[in-house]
Amino acid sequence: MKNNFLEHIKSPKELRLLKQNELPKLAKELRNFIIDIVATKEGHLGASLGVVELTIALHYIFNTPKDQLIWDVGHQAYGHKILTGRKDIFDSNRQFGGISGFPKRDESIYDTFGVGHASTSISAALGMAIGSQLKGEDKHHIAVIGDASIASGMAFEGLNHAGVTDVNLLVVLNDNTIGIDPSVGALKQYLTNVKKGTQRQDNIFEALNFNYSGPIDGHDIDTLILELKRLKTVKGPKFLHVITTKGKGLKQAEENQVKYHAPGKFDAKTGNIIVKAETIKAPKYQDVFGHTIVELAKENKNIVGITPAMPTGSSLKYMMDEIPKRAFDVGIAEQHAVTLAAGMATQGLIPFCNIYSTFLQRAYDQIIHDVALQKLPVIFCLDRAGLVGEDGATHHGVFDLSYLRCIPNLIIFAPRNEIELRDIMYTAQFGLAKPIAIRYPRGKGVTIDWKQPFKKIKIGKGEQLKSGNKLAILSIGTIAQNVAEAIDLCNNKEDIAHYDMRFVKPLDETLLHTILKKHDSIVTVEDNTIKGGFGSAILEFVAFHQYKNTIKTLGIPDTFIEHGTVNELQQTVGLGAIGLKNYFEVL
Amino acid sequence: MKNNFLEHIKSPKELRLLKQNELPKLAKELRNFIIDIVATKEGHLGASLGVVELTIALHYIFNTPKDQLIWDVGHQAYGHKILTGRKDIFDSNRQFGGISGFPKRDESIYDTFGVGHASTSISAALGMAIGSQLKGEDKHHIAVIGDASIASGMAFEGLNHAGVTDVNLLVVLNDNTIGIDPSVGALKQYLTNVKKGTQRQDNIFEALNFNYSGPIDGHDIDTLILELKRLKTVKGPKFLHVITTKGKGLKQAEENQVKYHAPGKFDAKTGNIIVKAETIKAPKYQDVFGHTIVELAKENKNIVGITPAMPTGSSLKYMMDEIPKRAFDVGIAEQHAVTLAAGMATQGLIPFCNIYSTFLQRAYDQIIHDVALQKLPVIFCLDRAGLVGEDGATHHGVFDLSYLRCIPNLIIFAPRNEIELRDIMYTAQFGLAKPIAIRYPRGKGVTIDWKQPFKKIKIGKGEQLKSGNKLAILSIGTIAQNVAEAIDLCNNKEDIAHYDMRFVKPLDETLLHTILKKHDSIVTVEDNTIKGGFGSAILEFVAFHQYKNTIKTLGIPDTFIEHGTVNELQQTVGLGAIGLKNYFEVL
Repeated sequence: MKNNFLEHIKSPKELRLLKQNELPKLAKELRNFIIDIVATKEGHLGASLGVVELTIALHYIFNTPKDQLIWDVGHQAYGHKILTGRKDIFDSNRQFGGISGFPKRDESIYDTFGVGHASTSISAALGMAIGSQLKGEDKHHIAVIGDASIASGMAFEGLNHAGVTDVNLLVVLNDNTIGIDPSVGALKQYLTNVKKGTQRQDNIFEALNFNYSGPIDGHDIDTLILELKRLKTVKGPKFLHVITTKGKGLKQAEENQVKYHAPGKFDAKTGNIIVKAETIKAPKYQDVFGHTIVELAKENKNIVGITPAMPTGSSLKYMMDEIPKRAFDVGIAEQHAVTLAAGMATQGLIPFCNIYSTFLQRAYDQIIHDVALQKLPVIFCLDRAGLVGEDGATHHGVFDLSYLRCIPNLIIFAPRNEIELRDIMYTAQFGLAKPIAIRYPRGKGVTIDWKQPFKKIKIGKGEQLKSGNKLAILSIGTIAQNVAEAIDLCNNKEDIAHYDMRFVKPLDETLLHTILKKHDSIVTVEDNTIKGGFGSAILEFVAFHQYKNTIKTLGIPDTFIEHGTVNELQQTVGLGAIGLKNYFEVL
Repeated sequence: MKNNFLEHIKSPKELRLLKQNELPKLAKELRNFIIDIVATKEGHLGASLGVVELTIALHYIFNTPKDQLIWDVGHQAYGHKILTGRKDIFDSNRQFGGISGFPKRDESIYDTFGVGHASTSISAALGMAIGSQLKGEDKHHIAVIGDASIASGMAFEGLNHAGVTDVNLLVVLNDNTIGIDPSVGALKQYLTNVKKGTQRQDNIFEALNFNYSGPIDGHDIDTLILELKRLKTVKGPKFLHVITTKGKGLKQAEENQVKYHAPGKFDAKTGNIIVKAETIKAPKYQDVFGHTIVELAKENKNIVGITPAMPTGSSLKYMMDEIPKRAFDVGIAEQHAVTLAAGMATQGLIPFCNIYSTFLQRAYDQIIHDVALQKLPVIFCLDRAGLVGEDGATHHGVFDLSYLRCIPNLIIFAPRNEIELRDIMYTAQFGLAKPIAIRYPRGKGVTIDWKQPFKKIKIGKGEQLKSGNKLAILSIGTIAQNVAEAIDLCNNKEDIAHYDMRFVKPLDETLLHTILKKHDSIVTVEDNTIKGGFGSAILEFVAFHQYKNTIKTLGIPDTFIEHGTVNELQQTVGLGAIGLKNYFEVL
């Protein structure tokens, strides 16, 4: 099919010149365009396919960019990007140097707010709407939010405030009953009842003072346009409930919504996912977590697992399948997840609370106030720590060592490999009388025989990986792999010692004294920001004991890092093997 | 009146031996006991007076401590403490070495969960209830939460999860239409409509799958007991809506609920607040903020003010009174407050977002993801930074420099005195092209003539306060006062230089080079944790430039600090003038 309409659309201006009865054809073209590109370039497929008609209708009816659209979690925004001047560069989506997979203010005037983490759109849109009102501007502000995201506390806070204002705010609920995994919780049940017509009396959104309409079919452009036109004339906070199908228009994506959220490469015609020829058989870290918690939980009846809306991404799914009574998906609710874990710990349960490093930022106060202050032995498993690759600046897990290290009573461990992840999980279940945070990266490790018999890890003990008399490299976590490769490439490799400190807190003080007495020059390496992280912990130790060694701290620079493959990004920041080698050699 | 009943109650066991018709008399005694002690020892009065009957009824009907009570924000829990074995030590409430003003697990088996920050009780109680269910225990779990706290996103997350469980959880909504300040938001309006009987159709809590009952009179013990008895037999998640009056039983406290939230000393008989003879006329920092934002906002129409539920505590109240359209109390919703500010900043508004240091922990992700990543020039005013005194471990603002310093694009400033706070607010309004965090302490400053003409502050510039050739002290913020006093006490005071670095980020690198070249020994002083804070920033700079000076970092040790006066606590951690002096002298 030729993209007769799409090819002429450089901006929503051209879109608005189309006749309404031409829009379904445009929708078809836009959908195919997304499928064709994502099939070869990868990316988030399902969410954007689900809002093709909604995207067209919103830009058709509202006067963007003057009217402001905020897409909650940018997953949905591919169609928006393509219709707002980025069609020709859309094949660079999520690639190093290319456009971002999420709306981004720097990228386009149509991207009114950067959105990567969920549930921010209502607050942001309300802030904009209040701004317009104060400035006497006549604009519309539209937040498009999914049913999984609206169940997050932050979205509720936004609704609660918006409901007592009289600003021009339209909240569009894109209800497809799924986030990355199927939505959960009482609000989801409520929405289901609304759709079935069995929820007759209690309208939550009307109770919160919104002018509610819907539910309507989000794939019917005429209905959407009719309703959006009407709402455009309604003053004050409005709520439109739209029903869509995630993955709409690609059979497999509709039928297997979790897999086709971000399916990797697939055949654009058949929809079949292209299975990569595996070179390394090593597992993903998330699967090491997922399989190990099942293994441990079968033996230890007190173990429970918690994930805020990431059962598939964290692989807690394995436990949810095998031991459903003790594995909890609490939805996009990191704050609740952490304090729930704290409550469970008071009863003698052993909660493994699995949260992506970047999302744990949402529950920072709860870690301090509800867990660490009470010394409750919650086991935090921080997936996606370090550079995460294509999701980019909103998702890198590069602050955790810094924001966690200042919390009293907290143990912080970063496994060097899959076996260490298993062993620390095994060790932690016996109770450390304190909480522990275990941080590990996205993606695959390097160990094929990872399923070794469990061994206990001694808390606060580091390890020497390689001896050497001059320079000592101190690394933390899986970046040890790059360090080892780098040392191996060095001319002076015999001179270089390598230590895996393993614990950022408590530090292995005995080992540190030995290292500092033996080596004049020390380099610390971490895939966390150099501000306040592992390297700073070493500097604090050195200063406290008045050592005069030369210490260099390597890590993520104090700037937000864009998207690209993990390798590309590591090289950019000097943490690739070659970069490290060049650095080590001149010392 | 003799406390005939109260004096015999050592624990709820004795309470349960009373006849139901004796309970109103006990309520009277308990109320008078609270008034008598708080009148002389100070503390949170209003919230606990409001739940006297509820407290008695809950312990009478439920089998505490086997059944578990969680009091959201401990303010409410004085009666609970007195009835659970702490009557005789209640006069040590909130004092150094005495009992905590909040429920605290270490203190009593009846304090099932530490609660200082709002809105944690539902998540904690649900965690406990799931724990009991998994262990096959037949227990009740009761969260008592105020109407201001239940409007926070975290509470919604807890409700949303609880509504799809079948555990024994009772949520008691203590609805008195006020937190510290009057409640706000759409949910508050909804609750008001429920009470007036004008909200007929939409029951939010039933929509979330709770078995709802109420509203009932929370001061009528017989009604409370009847309803609690009934609910004890109902399975699954239950919701009881109770109407109370904050400050109940003390006329002035009922009539002036904001003032009597924590009135300081008052006459137990008349209720009149005892006005302290003022020795220092210096203002509270919060008032410097409050008056200054009004002054600036009158000139600059783009300035807006935001507070999450602390209009009185932050003194944003002055702006809400004078320029109500541009001053926003968004309720206990720190996450929303920050992203709302970000949204406003995109429209060219200049948001001053005032949040207590300890509560900003609730919005950590929003600072990173919604503000700093987008370089939006939000002006964060962090009140109650450093040690806060009697509120204790849950409330000290001693982590902010560490958790903020690792965020790219963020400017961090700590004024040394009131004039600097004014001047940085003045400076920031002109736009720094980046966000800024301004942290200042609780309570009064020392400057009487604080209302000086505004002067611009140069970003990233420190100041020498005192010259000296040997030791150099580098301080940040108002702790400079203690440092100056300490130096003055030193025998070797001529040798000691004192620098106020003012900016934790960006550091004044020029000044630092000068200092490091001139002084062999450096001491950094801050009232933030020594892990990752200001001192660590200096260590990072020193290491990066390979200086070999001896650096000592002083600050809050890596442990949670209990309650007491700020002076007592500063002395305990070695940050009092004498402690510092002893330290400086031996260097």
